[in-house]
Amino acid sequence: MRLAAPAQTGAAACSGSVSKERSCHQTTGGLQMFETYDFLSLARSAALGVAAVVLVAAPALCQTDPLPSWNGTAPKAAIVGFVEKVSKAGSPDFVPEPERIAVFDNDGTLWVEHPMYIQLAFALDRVKTLAPAHPEWKDVQPFKAVLEGDMKTLAASGEKGLLELIMVTHAGMTNDDFQKVVTDWLSTARDPRFKRPYTELVYQPMVELLAYLRANGFKTFIVSGGGVEFMRPWAEKIYGVPPEQVVGSSIKTEFKMQDDTPTLHRLPEVNFIDDKAGKPVAINQQIGRRPIAAFGNSDGDLEMLQWTTMAGAPARLGMLVHHTDAEREYAYDRKTEFGRLDKALDAAAITGWTVIDMKADWKQIFHVHME
Amino acid sequence: MRLAAPAQTGAAACSGSVSKERSCHQTTGGLQMFETYDFLSLARSAALGVAAVVLVAAPALCQTDPLPSWNGTAPKAAIVGFVEKVSKAGSPDFVPEPERIAVFDNDGTLWVEHPMYIQLAFALDRVKTLAPAHPEWKDVQPFKAVLEGDMKTLAASGEKGLLELIMVTHAGMTNDDFQKVVTDWLSTARDPRFKRPYTELVYQPMVELLAYLRANGFKTFIVSGGGVEFMRPWAEKIYGVPPEQVVGSSIKTEFKMQDDTPTLHRLPEVNFIDDKAGKPVAINQQIGRRPIAAFGNSDGDLEMLQWTTMAGAPARLGMLVHHTDAEREYAYDRKTEFGRLDKALDAAAITGWTVIDMKADWKQIFHVHME
Repeated sequence: MRLAAPAQTGAAACSGSVSKERSCHQTTGGLQMFETYDFLSLARSAALGVAAVVLVAAPALCQTDPLPSWNGTAPKAAIVGFVEKVSKAGSPDFVPEPERIAVFDNDGTLWVEHPMYIQLAFALDRVKTLAPAHPEWKDVQPFKAVLEGDMKTLAASGEKGLLELIMVTHAGMTNDDFQKVVTDWLSTARDPRFKRPYTELVYQPMVELLAYLRANGFKTFIVSGGGVEFMRPWAEKIYGVPPEQVVGSSIKTEFKMQDDTPTLHRLPEVNFIDDKAGKPVAINQQIGRRPIAAFGNSDGDLEMLQWTTMAGAPARLGMLVHHTDAEREYAYDRKTEFGRLDKALDAAAITGWTVIDMKADWKQIFHVHME
Repeated sequence: MRLAAPAQTGAAACSGSVSKERSCHQTTGGLQMFETYDFLSLARSAALGVAAVVLVAAPALCQTDPLPSWNGTAPKAAIVGFVEKVSKAGSPDFVPEPERIAVFDNDGTLWVEHPMYIQLAFALDRVKTLAPAHPEWKDVQPFKAVLEGDMKTLAASGEKGLLELIMVTHAGMTNDDFQKVVTDWLSTARDPRFKRPYTELVYQPMVELLAYLRANGFKTFIVSGGGVEFMRPWAEKIYGVPPEQVVGSSIKTEFKMQDDTPTLHRLPEVNFIDDKAGKPVAINQQIGRRPIAAFGNSDGDLEMLQWTTMAGAPARLGMLVHHTDAEREYAYDRKTEFGRLDKALDAAAITGWTVIDMKADWKQIFHVHME
């Protein structure tokens, strides 16, 4: 692994001289990204002789390309064109700041979802961790399959089996305890192919996009089929998206006073599945405004993109990340188990959504280069 | 009715000379209040010879008392003391800005809830509006009682009757249509006692408190037993609380493509009741962070205040509005049907929550003086 080349991250694209033609989109909101992601690049830039004082004193002036990890192809032009027309006062497509809501799917849109959803890897690991206290699992499916690494039998257990795994591994504790379990797991778990913590397997172009939108007055939300409490412990640090802007699937919780201490207990019962037609419902329930931009990568995002873009108003942006890069990441669409992109890909052509070809449109996939 | 005296609103408390001792809490966030509420006062201030340019050029300098409608009694001191200690860098009670979450009940805490919840008045009016298309209602309870103004029979129909009314008046249409119905109703409906639009019957001291908290880096949320879609159409304009920061009760909705148009239909089925032990559950579900300040007025807020203040950390603020002013508003607590304050009043004494005595602690109740 080597660090990203300076030209591929926002701060590092800075030079000493700033021409008047260069537009600047970087404001306080966008600096979030620097804090999380670009400290390595900043260090490198400093080593290359870019005066640190310039970066500190005039971050806005030195930000020339807010999307340096995107190639200059159609998707980048679509993003920049959209953002400029909705944020320019006087433009016929101008949208007031409070209404600039952008929603992002997570698995496969912001971070890796192959060889399996990261939350599923968490559940499987968790079964193994809890197994010593459950000797009966050796003989009961789907736990037996998990413990024996028999993915075929596990897959055959279907949705029912998966739900059983989720309930055993995600419920039966307080919410605070669950968040600690997630945080601890993420600090040690490693992706089997890239051998990196999962939180490093987020897509650098999308992190830049989140920051770019925020710098232009957008409020960015995650709207994911994944568990809301699985995402909240790290989404703010990694994506700059605070807990109150994370929407996801959930199990029921119960409030109890326990020895004079108020607690929220996680119950083994599904509350809401934030996928497919559930996404617009959750967007309305939690955000209460119709987004003007939506980003997804699978059929699970179809209805979210429909809800966002088919509102009659012209200035709407719908984009799909198409996984086309087997070398740097993965290539899959209509036939995969995780993140199937089939109906939504057909709909994109009809509805005018922009399809991002990862291989052609992204200069860089992850924050760090994998070798 | 006459306008509020200048000294009773934030902007109007401004004078040309600013002493160094005066602290300033007003920032961009707080200006929200000016846009919504204080244009009348601003106009009056201008008439009184306060140069408009001072207000525009240095709004921060001219803001001396952010809570002018509060008397200098204990609750005001508790609020200011709390805000100062959590927002002062280096203070042992310092709380980083993103964690400064404040939650507010609505009915009886931010606006009037007597002689009945405003949303109930809406439902009753709605039954009358819809009645011509439902001739059968003349003979069926609880509709018969509503149409005959027989509140005693209506009350006797209990929760079941009430729920029936809510389903008939709140479901069976798209979400957009419902919001329009609410907005239209609020523009013409008048409170029976004060003869004013309901949106004018919000408590001026609480509106100042919302703005003061936001000016000090707080994110303010409404967490109400009322319907979330009943509040969202006006909460931003009236309280400065955007739709995504309104948490409330809800009915289920369904996403459907209808003639190539994506729609959200409101179904006659309860989704969530955001009251009592439901409030901490909803706070966790939608906000995902534990608040550090909570404001309520009834037993429905007990668990929300417990969840907020009994977290082990010292810097937490819990407050209850006690309706003690029959002359300017209403006086009720342990025995009322709407907004009963009984268990929570007992808990306040034990837990150390501050009880606001409306009569003694509020210089002014509403934005306008009622005569």
